[in-house]
Amino acid sequence: MRKAWVKALVLDKVHNSPVVILGIEGTNKVLPIWIGACEANALAMSLEGFEFPRPLTHDLILNLLDALDAKLERIVIHSVKENVYYATLVIRDLAAIEGEEEEPEDQAIIEMDARPSDSIVLAVKKNVPIYVSNEIVDEHAIDLEMSEEASDEEFKKFVENL
Amino acid sequence: MRKAWVKALVLDKVHNSPVVILGIEGTNKVLPIWIGACEANALAMSLEGFEFPRPLTHDLILNLLDALDAKLERIVIHSVKENVYYATLVIRDLAAIEGEEEEPEDQAIIEMDARPSDSIVLAVKKNVPIYVSNEIVDEHAIDLEMSEEASDEEFKKFVENL
Repeated sequence: MRKAWVKALVLDKVHNSPVVILGIEGTNKVLPIWIGACEANALAMSLEGFEFPRPLTHDLILNLLDALDAKLERIVIHSVKENVYYATLVIRDLAAIEGEEEEPEDQAIIEMDARPSDSIVLAVKKNVPIYVSNEIVDEHAIDLEMSEEASDEEFKKFVENL
Repeated sequence: MRKAWVKALVLDKVHNSPVVILGIEGTNKVLPIWIGACEANALAMSLEGFEFPRPLTHDLILNLLDALDAKLERIVIHSVKENVYYATLVIRDLAAIEGEEEEPEDQAIIEMDARPSDSIVLAVKKNVPIYVSNEIVDEHAIDLEMSEEASDEEFKKFVENL
């Protein structure tokens, strides 16, 4: 499992579709994931730190988790089938562990199936880690094959060629 | 409080914005609420009963509620300030009432602030009642002033003049 972060949100001009580009920690690799326009919009606003007077849909999700005493701990993009990426929200149900004596690390974890797009928006909003499975990193991430210094330039080229 | 239902989802051509038209039970009134394009898209797909292989954002909300043993019971569109409508999701936290002896009607209700658009999508998906406060019905709903027979024709005119 590798930690990842949102390196960029760009537009694939050929398919007129937004693409979120994840950087993979400890590598020169990036993982592009095509997402829907609405989720891209929500992600763009989260990345910019925009705040709105009314809760947007992903804010509502986080408010509901708070109200139900549950906490998003991390997201995991774990597999890909027929070009569709699958993610999991890892949520701790704090209500379920009240009064228990077991170590909290092992307790009351709910793994919720979700699309990467929704998961990434929630991770960015809540500032929790994004993980990508080793299998995806090995088979689907793209090596930019570049030095640290060249990375910005190479990355621009990569995005332009999407 | 009046029960309502989604009578139509239309486009306000002047502002190029989707409008959800709620019918108000027991009256000839309708309540138009302007909503965002993404929420309109989600609502349209719910109204058509489309199912997707992957959970859409509002499906994710309902899946999370299920996983946390909480249940959406109804939504209430309760007030309007400066042309912005406010709604509440009324949720029962079933985990909190386990083992309690009190009557379930009075227990463990969470009222979650939400936009009408998200609330209506969730209500339609989950098939739970939509309520509108009497104040909104009195002050903001529009009386089509028509007989039952004329209602379709009148409603078309109303929509065309939006």
